[in-house]
Order: sequence, then structure tokens, then C-alpha cells
Amino acid sequence: MSQEQLQQVNEMIRSGPDLGSLPVPELRVAFDGFADFTPFDPSIKFEVVDANGVPCEIGVAPGSRTDATLLYLHGGGYVIGSITSHRGLVARLGQAASMRTMAVDYRLAPEHPFPAAVDDAVAAYQWLLDSGTPPDRIFFAGDSAGGGLVVATMLRCKARNIPLPRAAVLFSPFADMGTAGQSLVDNRDRDFVVTEGVAPGMAETYLAGAEAASPEASPIYGDLAGLPPILIQVSSHEVLLDDSLRLLRAAILVDVQVHLRVYQGLPHVWQLFTGTLDEGQAALEEAGAFFDKHLDM
Amino acid sequence: MSQEQLQQVNEMIRSGPDLGSLPVPELRVAFDGFADFTPFDPSIKFEVVDANGVPCEIGVAPGSRTDATLLYLHGGGYVIGSITSHRGLVARLGQAASMRTMAVDYRLAPEHPFPAAVDDAVAAYQWLLDSGTPPDRIFFAGDSAGGGLVVATMLRCKARNIPLPRAAVLFSPFADMGTAGQSLVDNRDRDFVVTEGVAPGMAETYLAGAEAASPEASPIYGDLAGLPPILIQVSSHEVLLDDSLRLLRAAILVDVQVHLRVYQGLPHVWQLFTGTLDEGQAALEEAGAFFDKHLDM
Repeated sequence: MSQEQLQQVNEMIRSGPDLGSLPVPELRVAFDGFADFTPFDPSIKFEVVDANGVPCEIGVAPGSRTDATLLYLHGGGYVIGSITSHRGLVARLGQAASMRTMAVDYRLAPEHPFPAAVDDAVAAYQWLLDSGTPPDRIFFAGDSAGGGLVVATMLRCKARNIPLPRAAVLFSPFADMGTAGQSLVDNRDRDFVVTEGVAPGMAETYLAGAEAASPEASPIYGDLAGLPPILIQVSSHEVLLDDSLRLLRAAILVDVQVHLRVYQGLPHVWQLFTGTLDEGQAALEEAGAFFDKHLDM
Repeated sequence: MSQEQLQQVNEMIRSGPDLGSLPVPELRVAFDGFADFTPFDPSIKFEVVDANGVPCEIGVAPGSRTDATLLYLHGGGYVIGSITSHRGLVARLGQAASMRTMAVDYRLAPEHPFPAAVDDAVAAYQWLLDSGTPPDRIFFAGDSAGGGLVVATMLRCKARNIPLPRAAVLFSPFADMGTAGQSLVDNRDRDFVVTEGVAPGMAETYLAGAEAASPEASPIYGDLAGLPPILIQVSSHEVLLDDSLRLLRAAILVDVQVHLRVYQGLPHVWQLFTGTLDEGQAALEEAGAFFDKHLDM
């Protein structure tokens, strides 16, 4: 990574929407504009499907395998974010993994608080299973709240005896709706994306009075035993660093194969800036290689 | 790793000395017997040197480079362990890294409590520097207490403006003499090596009344800023797991390049059982590749 690239991205972020102040409708529109930061191969074909009532977008790049699927859950604090905001990230991740993608347009708070997102993610996954893709050829990935939602979805599946996917990747997961991580203080001055109050505000909106300690809201409190291999990518400068570290620890203690990769000095979910940051593409390729390793086993 | 290999090693450990009960002299002799578990290439040439008053053993394998040196600090809770107990581990690590090794026979407690080990490690490193090896061609590695000592030694060097080595590897580091990690409880029933009372007992012997919170005794409390890249290897089943996780976090927060690799279900410092465990050799080769990557940069 060059310092020039990082500076350019930090300027994009500073000139972008203030996640802490705009009203939700405007925030959603502004956040969808982040899509411009991650250009992708125009030959990828997209198709919208109705997956048990949940709108999803399936993407297939020329040459990608269609006998395996990457199910993607976008970030945005359960309040913003969409298939649009993350289309470039998902497209590039699908290419890095050489497999088709399925981006889930789960319902957002405040209109649809917890556990609507979990309900929708499980419904979409169930549709994928029912459509004939075996679970050992399905991979989950998600960023920020979508990363927490990946784990919450697996916990719900485990509880309901729905077979689990083969492996999962979490980019900068937001996995504690109690926002109790000490890194919220320690990294306060180094995180330009999740600025003061943003994480607690979105968590409160999502919970709408539900218990923050519920494992389907805050999977750091879940019993992760039996979950498939997990790769976590996080930047050293994130206020949500401790969400990753606590997930890591919880996974280790119940013998989940878990691997943490720390990237230096990058913004929260830097994979969204892959058009500018070399480390974005490097992270996506690492995730792709991780999926590939488990596909061949 | 096969379950058969792991079972064989667990039997070796159970039939070995009880670290919690034998008197220190007998414990040292018994621990030196661990050397038999790590056979090594008999063509490696060893030579004992006096490094500023500290006995050290230099090892050179046929074909290994001698213009770079791996300085090794053995484990044993600052009370036991020696060049003998770790000769096979150091020899194999040196071969994996293709460079000569220098194992440091630092003084042990209770005869020589904290900070004698730090004094000796720094003196030996200074000798190596004075003998003409530049710091960017020196690598540190250590296991258990030796892993903590690697970090403590770098902290002392930083404070004294002694140039730091190029990179460091820590195997199952013991880095909190206060033994306050919650993993001492959480992994109590899964760790057959560092059994109940062993870590606190050795820490008390080493400290001999000194403050556990001193960073040169417990580097998890140190300011790690400016330290070179660090690779930490730890097993999921260790009572000292949180020593690794707290070092990891402390390093991340001050922008040290740090990488944690979690191995599943192995004993504390499984690298000592490389003769039996495939994962031992895999860990040493990963460490060698890590050094190699930094040597070429």
C-alpha cells in the first residue's frame, strides 16, 4: 500500500456522508454512492431472484464456477447498505474466489429491527440449499454488521439443524451490539469511518429494545462450537478491532478453525475501496484463496 | 496431524516429569530429557562461545547461511530448560530458516531471579552485534518464557537505543508473570503441559518479589511501539492462550506488524515434539519462511 493511496481514500471518506448525522433515507442514498469506489468487470452477469421472499442478486463472471456459491451479507450497521453499495466488492470477491455470488438484500432497521436481518439471511440461505447447492459448496462472507450477521446466521442454522456452509470470511466484523470493546476508546482517534457514536447509535436502532447480549444480535456471546473454518480480516486502526479479537477468542476456545489477519492502518472495511487501495484487492484475493482451499478439501 | 501422533505425544507428556512437584534440580535434568523428542540432523556443527559472559551455543547446518543469525531463547518458566533441552528444536528451526543459530544459556531462577534473564539475553545479543552481524540480519525466537523474554529483550534494547533485530517469532509465549489470563481457567482441562499452579509457581520464583506488572517481566504491559514484525504461534488448548492474545492486541494498537497463527488442539510448545508431530515441523517451517521473507526485504 502506498501512503498516497491511503491518503486518497481518507479524503474520499472525509468528503463522504457523515454516518453520525444524516437522516437514514439520505444516508442510504449517500452510502450507495460508495459503489463508485469499487469498479468491477462489466462482463459479470447479474440476475435478481426472489429467495423465499428475500430479494437477492446472483452474479456470475465469465469462467466462474456455478456449482459453488458465495453468499454475501453487506455491512452498514443493519441500517444502511444494499446490494448496490456493495456490488463492486461482491463482484470482485466472486472473481477472486472464481465462483458465483449471491448478495442478500435483507431488511434494515429502523423499519425492520432485530431479528429481521437474521430471519432474511437464513431464508435466503435455505432457498440456496433448496435450489440444489449442497452446503459444502456454499461459503458465507460479510463485512461490518454483515460480518456479525454471517456468524449470527450460522448460529441460527446450528440451532435449527440446518446444515452449515463450508467456511466463512468476515471483513471488519461488527459483532457486539453492546459496543463494549475497549478498542472503541483505544482507536477512537484512528478510525475515520466508524466515528464517535456511530456504532452505538446503529446498534440501538437495530436492537430496538432487544437484549444486546443475545447471541443472534451479538455473536461474540454465542457458542460457536461446530462452526466451519472462519477467516477474519481487520485493520489495526478500527474502533471495532475488539469485535474481531473477541470473536477470535470465542472461536479458539471451542476449537473452531479460525484465522485472524491484521492489516495495517487501513479504514474500516477497506475492501470497499479496492479501486484505489492495493490492500483491498490483496484482502479479497486472500479471501478467495481461503475459500478455494476449503473447496478442494 | 494424526490423532495417533497427538496421542503418542500426550503419553510422552504424561509419563514425563510433573512440572508442578519435582524439586528444581531433578526437574532440570528431567526436562533436558525432552531433547530426545526432537531428533535433528547429525551433520550440524555446534560450538560453545562466551558471549559477554553468557554461554551460548552456535549451530551451523551444512548449506545454512552464516551472514544471518537466529538468536534463540529457550522456555521453561525461567526456572528450567537449557541449550540441551532445546537443541533439537533450535537445530530444526535453523534449518527451516537456513541460517546459523545462537542458543542463549541465560541464568535461571531461583538462583538468579528477574531481571537476570533479560540482562543475559541483552548481553548475548550485544555480543552478536559486536561480532559484526548487523541487526537487520538477526532474528529472535523463543518459546514459552523464552517467548516472553524475546519481547522483554527487545523492550530493553529499545530503552537503551540498541538497534532491534529484523523480526521475531514467539512459540506459545508466557508473557504475563501475573498469570491473570482468563484462559488459565478456560483451558484448565485441555492443557496437559502447563498444569494447575505451574505458571504461577514459576512466575513467583522468577519474580522473587519484583512487580509482575514490570514490562521487562511481563511484556504484555510494555509499550511495544517500534518493535519489528512478530509472528506468534499458539495452540487453542493452552492455558497461556491469553498471553498470546494480549501480546497480539498490544502490538496491533501501536502498529507493530503482528501475525497470530492458531494451531488446533496441540500441547504447549508442540514444536518440542517435532520428532513425532507433523504440526511441529509445519510450525518450524512457517517460522523459517517468516524469517526468510524479512531477510529478502
